[in-house]
Amino acid sequence: MTAAAGHRRLSLNQATIKYATLPEALRVAAEAGYESIGLWREPVQEVGLDKAVQLVADSGLRVSSLCRGGFFTAPDGPERAKALDDNRRALEEARQLGTDTLVLVCGGLPAGDRDLAGARQRVRDAIGLLVDDATAAGVRLALEPLHPMYAADRAVINTLGQALDIAEQFPAAAVGVVVDTFHVWWDPDVIEQIARAGRDRITSYQVCDWITPMPADNLLARGVPGDGHIDFGPITRAVAATGYQGDVECEIFNADVWNRPYAEVAAHVAARYHDLVEPHL
Amino acid sequence: MTAAAGHRRLSLNQATIKYATLPEALRVAAEAGYESIGLWREPVQEVGLDKAVQLVADSGLRVSSLCRGGFFTAPDGPERAKALDDNRRALEEARQLGTDTLVLVCGGLPAGDRDLAGARQRVRDAIGLLVDDATAAGVRLALEPLHPMYAADRAVINTLGQALDIAEQFPAAAVGVVVDTFHVWWDPDVIEQIARAGRDRITSYQVCDWITPMPADNLLARGVPGDGHIDFGPITRAVAATGYQGDVECEIFNADVWNRPYAEVAAHVAARYHDLVEPHL
Repeated sequence: MTAAAGHRRLSLNQATIKYATLPEALRVAAEAGYESIGLWREPVQEVGLDKAVQLVADSGLRVSSLCRGGFFTAPDGPERAKALDDNRRALEEARQLGTDTLVLVCGGLPAGDRDLAGARQRVRDAIGLLVDDATAAGVRLALEPLHPMYAADRAVINTLGQALDIAEQFPAAAVGVVVDTFHVWWDPDVIEQIARAGRDRITSYQVCDWITPMPADNLLARGVPGDGHIDFGPITRAVAATGYQGDVECEIFNADVWNRPYAEVAAHVAARYHDLVEPHL
Repeated sequence: MTAAAGHRRLSLNQATIKYATLPEALRVAAEAGYESIGLWREPVQEVGLDKAVQLVADSGLRVSSLCRGGFFTAPDGPERAKALDDNRRALEEARQLGTDTLVLVCGGLPAGDRDLAGARQRVRDAIGLLVDDATAAGVRLALEPLHPMYAADRAVINTLGQALDIAEQFPAAAVGVVVDTFHVWWDPDVIEQIARAGRDRITSYQVCDWITPMPADNLLARGVPGDGHIDFGPITRAVAATGYQGDVECEIFNADVWNRPYAEVAAHVAARYHDLVEPHL
């Protein structure tokens, strides 16, 4: 697959080449033949939002998503108010960057708090408080269920079913879900829950492998598709069967991947996408 | 709580004091006021089964479970046949040791195999092949759902619901499930699935905490109850509500715990049990 041929629906999430600046990431993605990129707020803020909007426009790339909002499991008080304000800013950033998807990592248990059901309820309530802002911005709050190993410290929403139980309480134009193979591949209900989500609720499909042995830092346990244990066929076919027409992002937190040349990573991810994912779309 | 007062239903799983020999583990548990112990096959085999049976009888302790059978996800062939034979031996060992519970860790994906659904089906089929042996031995095959982070390399059964879907195909006297807080605490359906399991299917209730940050080796990520994020109240009350009258095992794989004096660990575990678990039974 040459750069000239392009990779159509494949989107390079910026976190896959974490050490690249925004201009570098846009250049790497475009030169590697990607038509789409997933952005993170921190590198956007490094160059400033106005400049980032201009750089994106100049790159000719679509922005498949902005990562991330969320972290709103704190009880009522200043911390929660601050988190909600930050999510409103993130919605506005997403709007200006031209993506309709703000990925949400909901947050774990507050320090010293063991009430998992309570934290989950506060996620639902936070979505309720943000839904009008999302509608106004034309950006969808994209609830991402995170693997259960992150339930305590990253995100209390851990299955696609849980995410949908919340999302379905709100209009599909304002609240959707992210399907990330790394987080959901183990779930015996995943195929059924993807069908339940349907085209209306799936705001982002992300591909990333589960590798073993797990690296010492469990936040960096992700692999390039094909390097791990996930069968991308059944999940991809289930997503395609909903009629999902959006981009397919590849987001990999992995110290070895981060230390490789950006262009090499972009080409490698694209090759694996064409082999393992695209045939099932 | 003094040793003389005893700890009634609390069982010290031998893996919590991993470096103790079987005679040491029995002595530590008895001296600390436990009435029950959970055994592992390796330390039993170190002293030999006949000698182990005698040591257990001399200790006056109940054996709450034997760990472990399982690891039967291989496809048909010599490896699978060997695993099934080993499970039959484990059932016989359990019988002689006087426990009615053989804990099963089902096994992960075979090397190079990405067919998770197929591996799960082979777990069901293996149970089917062993159920008559279990009935004959008067020992129950106790399916333990393991945390989803072990799906690739340890056990493809990852929720209590999945374990019950298999167990319910067989007589309750032959096939049950283990409820281990470490593995199931994150599951949004756990309370409902415990009720579904009921007194007939719950063969073992195990308490152990989820600690963060996760240690570099994710097999050693367990904590003494109270050291982590799990609220033992709701899960314990749900188990008690089924009418479960069995022992409550504490099994902790943790390098720091293993390096402490055995008697100190036994006392610490018992104190936390009385504070955090027993009031809900």
